[in-house]
Amino acid sequence: MKVNGESLRSIWRDNGSKKVKIIDQRYLPHSLEIIDLNSLNDFCEAISEMKVRGAPLIGITAAYAIADSMEKDSSDSNLENSCDSLSKTRPTAMNLFWAINFIKEKLYKIDSDIRADEASKLADQLAAEDIQKNKAIGQEGFKIIADISNKKNKEIVNILTHCNAGWLATVDWGTALSPIFRANREGLRVHVWVDETRPRNQGGLTAWELANEGIDHTMIVDNSGGHLMQRGMVDAVIVGSDRTTSAGDVCNKIGTYLKALAAKDNNIPFYAALPSSTIDWNIQNGLNDIPIENRSSKEIDHISGLGIDGRLETLRIYSESVKSLNPAFDVTPSRFVTGIITEKGIYDPNEEALRQAFGKK
Amino acid sequence: MKVNGESLRSIWRDNGSKKVKIIDQRYLPHSLEIIDLNSLNDFCEAISEMKVRGAPLIGITAAYAIADSMEKDSSDSNLENSCDSLSKTRPTAMNLFWAINFIKEKLYKIDSDIRADEASKLADQLAAEDIQKNKAIGQEGFKIIADISNKKNKEIVNILTHCNAGWLATVDWGTALSPIFRANREGLRVHVWVDETRPRNQGGLTAWELANEGIDHTMIVDNSGGHLMQRGMVDAVIVGSDRTTSAGDVCNKIGTYLKALAAKDNNIPFYAALPSSTIDWNIQNGLNDIPIENRSSKEIDHISGLGIDGRLETLRIYSESVKSLNPAFDVTPSRFVTGIITEKGIYDPNEEALRQAFGKK
Repeated sequence: MKVNGESLRSIWRDNGSKKVKIIDQRYLPHSLEIIDLNSLNDFCEAISEMKVRGAPLIGITAAYAIADSMEKDSSDSNLENSCDSLSKTRPTAMNLFWAINFIKEKLYKIDSDIRADEASKLADQLAAEDIQKNKAIGQEGFKIIADISNKKNKEIVNILTHCNAGWLATVDWGTALSPIFRANREGLRVHVWVDETRPRNQGGLTAWELANEGIDHTMIVDNSGGHLMQRGMVDAVIVGSDRTTSAGDVCNKIGTYLKALAAKDNNIPFYAALPSSTIDWNIQNGLNDIPIENRSSKEIDHISGLGIDGRLETLRIYSESVKSLNPAFDVTPSRFVTGIITEKGIYDPNEEALRQAFGKK
Repeated sequence: MKVNGESLRSIWRDNGSKKVKIIDQRYLPHSLEIIDLNSLNDFCEAISEMKVRGAPLIGITAAYAIADSMEKDSSDSNLENSCDSLSKTRPTAMNLFWAINFIKEKLYKIDSDIRADEASKLADQLAAEDIQKNKAIGQEGFKIIADISNKKNKEIVNILTHCNAGWLATVDWGTALSPIFRANREGLRVHVWVDETRPRNQGGLTAWELANEGIDHTMIVDNSGGHLMQRGMVDAVIVGSDRTTSAGDVCNKIGTYLKALAAKDNNIPFYAALPSSTIDWNIQNGLNDIPIENRSSKEIDHISGLGIDGRLETLRIYSESVKSLNPAFDVTPSRFVTGIITEKGIYDPNEEALRQAFGKK
C-alpha cells in the first residue's frame, strides 16, 4: 500500500544486501523507522517486542527468521532450536505456529546442505502468498461493502474496525482493511471509525494507513463504538483475527468481543477477515482452547507520543503503585459473528461451512 | 473519604475565609491541587473544563456558584443570568439542572436582600444532603456485595466499575464506589476492576481513591471487561449515572453500555448507583431524549502524565491530521440494568417502580 505516495510493504528482502527489512511499528504513526533483522535473536525480539505485529505478519516474520537461521547453520539441531525459540515469542497468533510447522516439515525432509536455499524460497513464497490471499480477502469483502453501498443509494458506508488489521499486520493489503482499500480504489464512498485500541493504540496505525490511501476516517476511543451503533452511525464492523477456531469463534485484539456484542444488539453485521492460515483446525471452543497472552503492565501505565518540541517521549499515566492486568486478546463466540471473510469466500462461522470450504475433514 | 490518612471532600467552604475550595481534578492522580473559586466565571470554568466532574458534584458546584454570585449582586437579573450561564456549562448531567432549578425557585420567592444568606444556606444544605444520600447509597448497595460475599463463602468479591463514580464525583462517599467503601469498612473482602475510561482516564481517580482507602484494585483498559466477565472474574458491575430516565435508561460515561452488554451476556448483575436527583422525571427514552455532549478531540489525541523527571507533561499521541469524535456519554437501555441503587433503596429499572419509590406521579 501507499506511504507518502510510494508503495511499501511491512517486511521485505533488500534487493542489494538480501537482508530482511521491517518497519519498526513501535514508532508509528510518529516516525517511519526501517530496521534490518540480522539474527534469530533480532527476529524473535521483533515479534515479542511487537516491532512487527498482526497474526499474518508474525507468521511471515517467523518464516524469514528460519531462512536467516538456516543460512548460518542448517543442521537438524539448529532447525529444531530456531523453531522452538520462535514458537515461544508469542502464544496466541495461529499464523506463527502455522508458518513454523509448514517450513519445519518441509526442511526436515531435505538434506541440510540445501536447506538454506529452500528455506529462503519458502519464506519468499509464503510472503507472496500472504499478499495474494489478503488481496483476495479484499475482493471478497468488497462485495459486502458494495452491497451496503447499493442499499444506501451510494451514500457513504461507515465501517468500524478495531486494532490494526491493515497492511501493517500482514505483508501487504491487510485483512480487515483490505476490503476497504479495495472499495476505495473501486470508487465507493467509505468512512472508517477507527477504534484507538488501548493499550497499544494500534488505531494510530490504522489511521496512518487510511490517511496514506486517502480514505476518510475518524478516530474514536474504544468506549464509543456501542454509542455510534445505537445511533445508526455504523453500517458494518470488520475486524481481523489472531486465531479462529474451526467452529468460528474469533480470537482477536482485546475489546473485539465488546464490539461484537454491540453489533448484535443493534443488528449490525460483524465480520472477521482472515487468511485460512489463521484457522486452528484442532480446536472448536475458543474460550477454552486458545491461550490468551498477558502482556506487561507497562503497556497500560506508560504511553508514548510527541512532546511540544516534536520529540518522541514516554510518560507514566498512572501511579507507580497501581497494578494492572493486560490480556492482549479476547474471544468472540461464533454466535456474534455474521461471517468469516477469507481468501476463498465469505463463510458462516460454523464447523461444517469452514471445513467444507477448505477441504478439512 | 481518606487521602493520605486524612479526611477530605471534593468541595468545601474554607472555615476562615469562607471561600469555596475544590480539588482541581485535572491534576489527579499525579498531583493534589486545591484551588479557590472566586467568581461566577471561575465556577463555570471549573465545571466546563472538568476541574470538577461527576453529576452530583457538578450540581453542588452550581449551588455554591449561585451563592457566590448572590453575595455580589442578589438582583433578579443576576440570579437569572447566573443560572443561565451555569446551565450552559455542560448539557448531560441531570443534577446540574436539578440543583439550579431547586435553588432558583427558592430564591425567586424571597426578597433580594436576604437572597445571599439563603443561597449560601441552600448550597451548604445540598452539599450535606449529597453526603447523606451517597452514604445511604453505600448502605443499600452494601447489601448486594454482602449477598455475593455470602454466596461465595466470604471469598473476594470482584466488582468492575467504569469511570469515576467515587467521592470525587460527589461531595463525599461517591455513588458506585460508596457500596464498595462501605463493604471494605464492614470487613468484606473486595477487589475492584478499574476501567481506565478513555479518553480522560478517570480510572486513575478511582484507583487513587481506592488506594487511599486501602481497597485492593487492578487497572484495566476499557477493552478488557468483557474478557474478564467471560472468564468468571467479575461478580458484579456497578457504575454511576449522569442522568437516568424515569423508565430506568441509564446515561453514563461513554463505554458503560458496552459493559452492560457484556454483563448481560455473562449473567452478571449490572447496577447503576445514583441519588434520586440524577433521575429526569420528564423523560422515558434515554436514547431519544438525553442530549449527549461531544467534547474536544484534544481529549483523545493528547494525554498527560509524568515524564522521567517527574514533571507533568502533555503529549500528542495521534497525528495532527487525524480527526476524532468524542461523545462523552452513552445510554444503557433499562433492559440491561439489574437494579438502580438509590438513597432510598434498590429499584427495578422501570417507570412504575421508580415513580412509586420517589412519590412521583
